[in-house]
Amino acid sequence: MLRLMRSVVVTVGLALTLACASGEPPSGRPAWALAIHGGAGAIPADAPEAEKRAYLASLRRVLELGRSVLAEGGTSLDAVERVIAALEDDPLFNAGKGAVLNREGEAELDASIMDGATLACGAVAAVRTVKNPIQLARRVMEKTPHVLLAREGAERFAEAQGLSLVPPAYFVTERRQRQWEQWRASQGGGTVGAVALDRYGNLAAGTSTGGLTGKMPGRVGDSPIIGAGTYAANATCAVSGTGRGEEFIRHGVARRIALLMELRGLDVEEAARQVVHEVLRPGDGGVIAVDRHGHIAMEFNTPGMFRGAADATGRFEVAIWKE
Amino acid sequence: MLRLMRSVVVTVGLALTLACASGEPPSGRPAWALAIHGGAGAIPADAPEAEKRAYLASLRRVLELGRSVLAEGGTSLDAVERVIAALEDDPLFNAGKGAVLNREGEAELDASIMDGATLACGAVAAVRTVKNPIQLARRVMEKTPHVLLAREGAERFAEAQGLSLVPPAYFVTERRQRQWEQWRASQGGGTVGAVALDRYGNLAAGTSTGGLTGKMPGRVGDSPIIGAGTYAANATCAVSGTGRGEEFIRHGVARRIALLMELRGLDVEEAARQVVHEVLRPGDGGVIAVDRHGHIAMEFNTPGMFRGAADATGRFEVAIWKE
Repeated sequence: MLRLMRSVVVTVGLALTLACASGEPPSGRPAWALAIHGGAGAIPADAPEAEKRAYLASLRRVLELGRSVLAEGGTSLDAVERVIAALEDDPLFNAGKGAVLNREGEAELDASIMDGATLACGAVAAVRTVKNPIQLARRVMEKTPHVLLAREGAERFAEAQGLSLVPPAYFVTERRQRQWEQWRASQGGGTVGAVALDRYGNLAAGTSTGGLTGKMPGRVGDSPIIGAGTYAANATCAVSGTGRGEEFIRHGVARRIALLMELRGLDVEEAARQVVHEVLRPGDGGVIAVDRHGHIAMEFNTPGMFRGAADATGRFEVAIWKE
Repeated sequence: MLRLMRSVVVTVGLALTLACASGEPPSGRPAWALAIHGGAGAIPADAPEAEKRAYLASLRRVLELGRSVLAEGGTSLDAVERVIAALEDDPLFNAGKGAVLNREGEAELDASIMDGATLACGAVAAVRTVKNPIQLARRVMEKTPHVLLAREGAERFAEAQGLSLVPPAYFVTERRQRQWEQWRASQGGGTVGAVALDRYGNLAAGTSTGGLTGKMPGRVGDSPIIGAGTYAANATCAVSGTGRGEEFIRHGVARRIALLMELRGLDVEEAARQVVHEVLRPGDGGVIAVDRHGHIAMEFNTPGMFRGAADATGRFEVAIWKE
């Protein structure tokens, strides 16, 4: 009998080890989970079919990239960085190539990334020559004692780190040029972000943006502000926001969601819902969030938010408007 | 009897009106309250007597300036701005003139201000030519749709607003030059800040700093980050922090104190105590905070923090080390 019990114990131990090695977490949560966004705003539901299809195809392509990173055992931090870099390279979104232009016709880019396991974080603000600001944010996190670098200082650090530099004209697409010429106020849309849970149980979040069309030079929005547009802590959740950056800073949207979970015991869906619908005002924007159980929240108070969600159970979906 | 009651009601109404006009709030709280700080750090208790006396005299002078603004019916926002501008002009502190130098020997200044009545806020990061960054932060709050402006964009806005501009050499004092030449790591000290409650029941907070000695060019600390180094909301409290800025950003120190009050019902002293001693680590720094009842908290986990507190009951005190 004793021998039998020992054998059971050994078998259970082995099963747990195998489960971990294969990426199955012990608790029954999905082994990994990922959500992405490409901005919230007044996306017209009667937009041309070709444009809708192009956005949905981009979201699917990027979600698939993140899915493969996580399914193959990559970390949440790597998934977030790679997904956001892909969205930065995609001219459809307001981050990296295709970013909106400030009132002088220049792109100035903000980005941040945060590691929920260690609370390490890095961010860059108002950079003009760095092809992938999210990569620079990660370097700030990993290679400096600082959290946030702005402008030339950030650009010179990017050069020292060997990151791809581009002339400012690289970011300017014909479409954004037209938009700038019309100087229409941005609807807050187009910022990109990702949140991920990996099979090691670690959360990460990142956000990247060109900010607001026609913004003042040097304007820094919520995307590079830890606690406003981006936050991650294993104890609570990972969050990335998009919308009217000044409101996200004022209300500390990402951190407020995490603290509603920590201090009030709310779940991630209810915390995101309360902040987006009770603290922010209609039209301000939206968030994506994931907790350590792989629960994904995607809340917005605008007509639409470009978004996608995937996890280890086979969930894989992209959407623009409310269901 | 009815006439008597009416008369009583009228009398009480008149008494309340008189109390408000004379600045006495109806609730018995002090009519106003103010706290200031000039940085936290490893201030040696065996510093020369003359140096100690100089710091205490500066704190008293600035506290007296803020006292007179509030006692004469000025707003908390005006008190915070004027007190911080005076600390910026004082070369003893690490803000404005006398700011520490980055690794290239330049001063780059950060500042922010927030109005607890409206949650309006403004901030500037890494400016090099603006004599009083706190004044520029207030202009960002009042004259732009943005919350945070960095570097040249902020400097050009300062010029357009007619603020005093100075050559970068203005900020560099012989003492900071020596300090930079030695390149010794800053102890996180010298940042300045103020929090105030005015007789109208409104809270305000502001912070201004030169950051860290030897910092990377473009490094932005917690002082211009709403929710990290500065926060004010009438519903909870006004907070200004000083210390290791990256830790203050990571943990969202100022907002966490406010949310511990809002979500957990803590008082301002207990909320400040928990964050400074249980979230931050020894040596990270300190905060000053005031709530709408005029309760003042001054907590630090360093050997000392330059600080002062005053209120309408006659309290008027400055200190460096623990009592």
